[in-house]
This record gives sequence, structure tokens and C-alpha cells, in this order.
Amino acid sequence: MTYQQLSVDSIPEYLSDIPEIGKIFSDFKHLKVSEIGDGNLNFVYLVTNRDRPRESAVLKQSVPYLRIIGKSWPLPKERMSIEIKALQKAAAWCPSHVPDIYHYSHDMCLVVMQDLSAHGVLRGRMIEGKVFPKLADHVSTYLAETLFHTSDLYLDHRQKKELVAEFINIDLCKITEDFVFTHPYERNQTNVYNPELNEVDLNFIHLDCDLKIAVADMKRKFMTETQALIHGDLHTGSIMANTEETYIIDPEFAFFGPMGFDIGAILGNVLMSYFSHEYRQIKLGREPYSYRKWLLDTVENIWNYFVEKFNRLWMEHEVSRKNLYWDYEYGEEHFKCQREIYLQNLFQDSLGFAACKMMRRILGLAKVADIADIEDNKERAKIERMTLQMGKKLVTERTQFHTIQEIIELAKDLSPLK
Amino acid sequence: MTYQQLSVDSIPEYLSDIPEIGKIFSDFKHLKVSEIGDGNLNFVYLVTNRDRPRESAVLKQSVPYLRIIGKSWPLPKERMSIEIKALQKAAAWCPSHVPDIYHYSHDMCLVVMQDLSAHGVLRGRMIEGKVFPKLADHVSTYLAETLFHTSDLYLDHRQKKELVAEFINIDLCKITEDFVFTHPYERNQTNVYNPELNEVDLNFIHLDCDLKIAVADMKRKFMTETQALIHGDLHTGSIMANTEETYIIDPEFAFFGPMGFDIGAILGNVLMSYFSHEYRQIKLGREPYSYRKWLLDTVENIWNYFVEKFNRLWMEHEVSRKNLYWDYEYGEEHFKCQREIYLQNLFQDSLGFAACKMMRRILGLAKVADIADIEDNKERAKIERMTLQMGKKLVTERTQFHTIQEIIELAKDLSPLK
Repeated sequence: MTYQQLSVDSIPEYLSDIPEIGKIFSDFKHLKVSEIGDGNLNFVYLVTNRDRPRESAVLKQSVPYLRIIGKSWPLPKERMSIEIKALQKAAAWCPSHVPDIYHYSHDMCLVVMQDLSAHGVLRGRMIEGKVFPKLADHVSTYLAETLFHTSDLYLDHRQKKELVAEFINIDLCKITEDFVFTHPYERNQTNVYNPELNEVDLNFIHLDCDLKIAVADMKRKFMTETQALIHGDLHTGSIMANTEETYIIDPEFAFFGPMGFDIGAILGNVLMSYFSHEYRQIKLGREPYSYRKWLLDTVENIWNYFVEKFNRLWMEHEVSRKNLYWDYEYGEEHFKCQREIYLQNLFQDSLGFAACKMMRRILGLAKVADIADIEDNKERAKIERMTLQMGKKLVTERTQFHTIQEIIELAKDLSPLK
Repeated sequence: MTYQQLSVDSIPEYLSDIPEIGKIFSDFKHLKVSEIGDGNLNFVYLVTNRDRPRESAVLKQSVPYLRIIGKSWPLPKERMSIEIKALQKAAAWCPSHVPDIYHYSHDMCLVVMQDLSAHGVLRGRMIEGKVFPKLADHVSTYLAETLFHTSDLYLDHRQKKELVAEFINIDLCKITEDFVFTHPYERNQTNVYNPELNEVDLNFIHLDCDLKIAVADMKRKFMTETQALIHGDLHTGSIMANTEETYIIDPEFAFFGPMGFDIGAILGNVLMSYFSHEYRQIKLGREPYSYRKWLLDTVENIWNYFVEKFNRLWMEHEVSRKNLYWDYEYGEEHFKCQREIYLQNLFQDSLGFAACKMMRRILGLAKVADIADIEDNKERAKIERMTLQMGKKLVTERTQFHTIQEIIELAKDLSPLK
């Protein structure tokens, strides 16, 4: 089928022609289609059967430009192919945390998938102060399963390299290269600042030698390390969750990159939520301790559970393939040391990436609602300064941290948990 | 043209049909073709006009198997396409140190190029004790020009990523992964040892925890870091030289990998030559100081000249593109720090790779004639032990070295320069 951009009006007819969709909707006479996407890149529609409201699906289609800007910012619509293939790869290893795909078309640049609208977008729910008791467990499972199984630790050398070529994602990587690793750290016209931030605040980042070198080094890692197939945009807006279930969506930025970029994205975003709730919990009329304690526990648990799960996958795999390299009296112990060092390096990478993801949300173009939606600019600036301080320390001193507990302590030093 | 394997007999007719070759040979009636290749992978022929001996060319063709083993080890003949493209890329930036290409055919998996037989293969000439006064200058130019201009420091983001995909080199990378980074460090059946090496010598490498973890980490870098288009096999057997000229040949292992792999390959091979000449100079009846001093100077100069040239290319490029990132009062100074740290990391990578390239030549399948052709096995074992000691120290302590002078001192500690 030749590409054509669908609309609220044309979607029912399009869907009615697709055999697989017949399993989702018992008839196509009274489908209700509404645009629900608030993303920057694509169009997203919720399709429901008015007669049987439990029959529903989500349709996501890419257009040949950046949706938030319009046709003046062209972006190949073929990015949907990456998203489709990345969803399939993640589903292969972690089906419980990826939406079911009902239909996809590379030509039409679209995917029809499970309706998760009963699950909230994690960022929004966290702004409201909702607790997700299984979040750390689920996210750590997703990270361990997807990252391990798409790395050289698991994949055959040939498969891995073929996948690296297949997932080269030039245009979306460029967005990250510019908006996460470059513009926020220079006086770039695309940056947007809270007017309460002053020259001293900006210079704290823009003129710091160690910081600029460290950020450039994280950018180099992002651009050159094909460690695993990463999601590429794993912030709290890419997670749909309720108290029981967690789904990771929107992997259009996927490519073979450093594992720490995904881990850092989620850790950094939960840390920003922690800072924001120094203010938000008071505004919500709550005693702020318990929610903020849960946020810090989530940071701690995501990392610690990840380590446990990644380690187990690696160990089981090496046992199953009887690796000659470690096949000697103390080999098992030496292999354990190798895993410890590998995970230590991954931890430090994750901190560096978390830092970039945090600082760019304060100084760059794209904000996080957790902080940017605080209407009192003075209060917002207080949270933003904490975020910048934490980011600067994490990226410049990343190799000096060894446990996630130290990161928790640092967050508490900047914004006491009381 | 459909692929067919050429032979001494069929080459003259093949060449006579190619217009570009008409510029090389004034006629095709009395061409002399002889097989000259001693490589492991391909067939190489020297073609000369008997009537005008100054008219000559080299024809190199790949076959669908590993030449040294035979048809039992299949290897896609399309590897020649990588070699052709890598020669072209290197020639674009460093034409004086790459052979002229007269003709190539991706279908026939062959290249016809400048005859360098008047230049010796560097390894053989160094075994004979020949001095190449311009070697360090030429090799450092080749390294700086090719590595800088194929990295993200120079290339546009799109070009770089398209080239990464184009140069994915699955089968030849696998040979390196196995024979440089895995088999030599385990009790692998493919290993070949000098019978004079005993269990203690082998265990010094095979059972050492720090070493095995360090080598695995270098392997990870080799498999995941797409830093630049590297030659991939830059030992002294891939260099043809006389006192005035230096040519880098045989880039069939080229792919986007860590820059340090090329730098380490050449440094490691000159260091092995240094160790071997503790014995060889005496056998040649020479006073060993001056040749070995030249070898150490070459190691030192390759690195130092490389730093100077790479730095200059990087600086000139940043000035020409007016990089906003460093555009502030102390920006120039901060950018200088960035380059220093980048080159420090590259130095330490290079040491790690040099170490692997050295140790594998002692314990793995493929030897270097510098050491393995020493007929007295006891003397050979002495040189081999030095090489293993140096390799182990370089790879396990690579982050503790800061200047090439420290490496020279280490070599002299193991094998005094006298």
C-alpha cells in the first residue's frame, strides 16, 4: 500500500480492510476515533467501538516531518520502521512490559497496538503523586532483558552486527546529539530558560571546563558505543503504568548505543521528580516524606534489581555455553570479578547519562512538566538549581561513585528528605 | 562480469580488456605473471611487461575461502569490496602512503594496483636490521589523517553512520575477535606454543584474573566502539617501505572500530622487533645498541608525531567550523584540555590493544617471524617471555601510563638497551 496520511475520518475504513484487526473489533460500523497523541513526533489515535467500549486499539502513524514543529522540520517517516522493529525485539524478551502489536505496516508507517489508556502516562501520574509499587521491579526487568539479550554478551557476532546496521537511526540520533548533548551546554538559540535563572546559573554549566569535557565524552559514547539495542528515550513519558502493570512504549529513538543511556534516562527522570516534589507535595497538601521516600527507593531499586537480573542472565548464559575462557579452577571467581567491573562501568555510564538527561531538561528546548509546570518561577528555579548541581556532580565525578546509595545521599544532601 | 577465479594463465587476457590498464602496459603480448602473495587470505600476482620491465602492476583477488587453510574454511570473497573501499578512503586523506589503484572490480573481487615490489615488506626488512628513517613520520601521518577524518570529530553525523553500516565486516572481525582477543588467553586447541614455554609461562597468562578481565574489556571495545574507520590489521607485514617511501597495504580487515587498535598494532609490532633484536643483532654480528635504539625511537616518535598531527587536524577543523560549544573567554583553553584527555584515553586504549597484539603472537595461532623464526627455541622463549611480561603489564595497568617514554622505559627494563 502506498503511504498516505490517515485521519480521524479515514481510519475506520483503513482498519476494516485488515484481517488481524477483525480479531479486535467485532464490527467496524461505529468506531470512534480520537487523536490522543501529545508527543512531539507522530500522530496517535485511540479507536473504540461505540457499541462495545471494551474493544479498542491505538493507531500510531508517523508523518514526514516533526509533528510539534510542522512541515518546516522534515523527518523521514520511515522512523516508524525502527519503532515497529524495536517493539518486536523488546516483546521477544520482555512481552509483559511491551504493548501487544495487532498490525503494522512499514509502507504506511504505522502500528496498531494494545490500548493502554486505562494506564496513565507515568510522568503525569507521578506529578499527581501516585505510587507505583511494582515500577522498579518491572522497569529493571525490561532493562535487564532487553539490554542483555541485544548485546554481544548474548548475541552471536553475526546477528549483532547485522542488527547494528539495521537499526542505524540517523535522524533521531541527531536530535539527541543536539538537544541532549550539545545545545543545552552552550549559548544556543534553541535553549529556553526559566527567566528566574540568572547568568551565574547559566555560567555554572556553560563555562565549566570539567563539565563541558565530561558532557562531550558522554556524547562520544552515545555516538560510538554499539553496546546493545537501546530504547533511546526512556523517560517517564515513555512509560504507561497502573499499580499492577508497566508498559514501555515509543521506542522510535532505538539504535545500538550505550546501555547506560536507557538506565540513566529513567534514573534521571525519577530524580527530577524527587526534586520537584519538594515543592509539589506541599502544594498537594501532603506531608512530603513518604512519597519522596518512595521515589528514592525507586531509584535505588531500579539499579539494584537491574544488577541482580542482568547478572543472573549473564551467568546462566555462560553456564549454558560452557565458556572455555573461564574454564579453570578459579575461573568462576574471575568471571564474577569481570561482571562486577562491567556493571561498575555501566553504573558510571548511567550516572553520566542521567546527568545529561537532567541538565538538558533545565537548559535545553524540551522540558519536563514535573519541573517546568511549576508556575511559581522562583520555586521552579530552586528545583532547577538542585537539578543542575546534581547533574554537574554526577557527570564530572561519575567515576568516583560506586553504589546507588551514594546517589541517594547526594540527592538528599541537595534536597533533604524530611 | 561474473566472478571467476583468475590464474597466472588467464590474467593477461583479463587485463588486456580493461581500458585503464592500457595506461599501465603499452602492450599485452609478453606479460609475465607470477604469484607473489604470502598472505593468509588472498591471491596476489605481480604482472610485468617482459619487453618493458618498468611496466608492472599487482593484481590481488579474493577467493571464497581462507587461502592458507583452503576450501574447508569458507570466507566470503566479497571481503575484497571492503578492501577496495578502504583503500579509496585512505587514499582520499593520505595518498602518499597508499598504493595507486589502477582498476578494481567488486564483481570479480579484485584490485589492480601499483607494484611496490621495489619496496620491501617492513617486517622482513626489520628482521634483516634495515633502518627506515622516515617510518615514524609516515606512519604517524597515515594514522592521524585516516583516523581523524573518518571519526565523528570530522565527519558529518549522517555520513559517519552510513559509512559504519557500509563497512560492517562480520567475517574478518570474527577472525580478530577469536584469534587476537579470545583463543590465546584460554587453553584453545588452535593455539601453537614454542615447546620451550612451560606450564608456568602459560598460566602466567591463562589464569591471571586481572589480565583476563582486561583482555575481555579490550575485546568489548573492539566489538562495540565505532570510533573511526580503522585499517584493522596494521602490523609490520601490512607496510611496504624503502628509506624514502612508506605504503600501507591490505586493509581487508577495515571497519569502524577503536582508533587505538591501529595505533596499538604498529607499536606492539615494533616493540616485538625490539625484543627480537636482543638476539638477532648479535646473530647478525652487530653491536646491538644502535638498531634497537632506532626501534625504540620509532615507537616513541610514532606516538608523539601522531599526537601532534592529530591535534593539529582537530584544532584546524574546529576553528574552521566556529564551534559554539567552545565559544567563550576560556573556551580555547578548555578545548585544549578536552583534546589532552581524549588523546590520553586513546593512548591507554592503544597500549591495551598493543598488549593483545603482542601476547597473541606468542600464544595464539598466528606468529610473527621476528620471534617465531628464531631457531634456537630457548633463545626464542626468552624473547617470548619478555613479550608476555610487557603485554600483561600494558593491558592490566594501561590506565596508569601517561607518556610513551614510560613505555620505552618498561621495554628497556625487560630487555636492556646496551
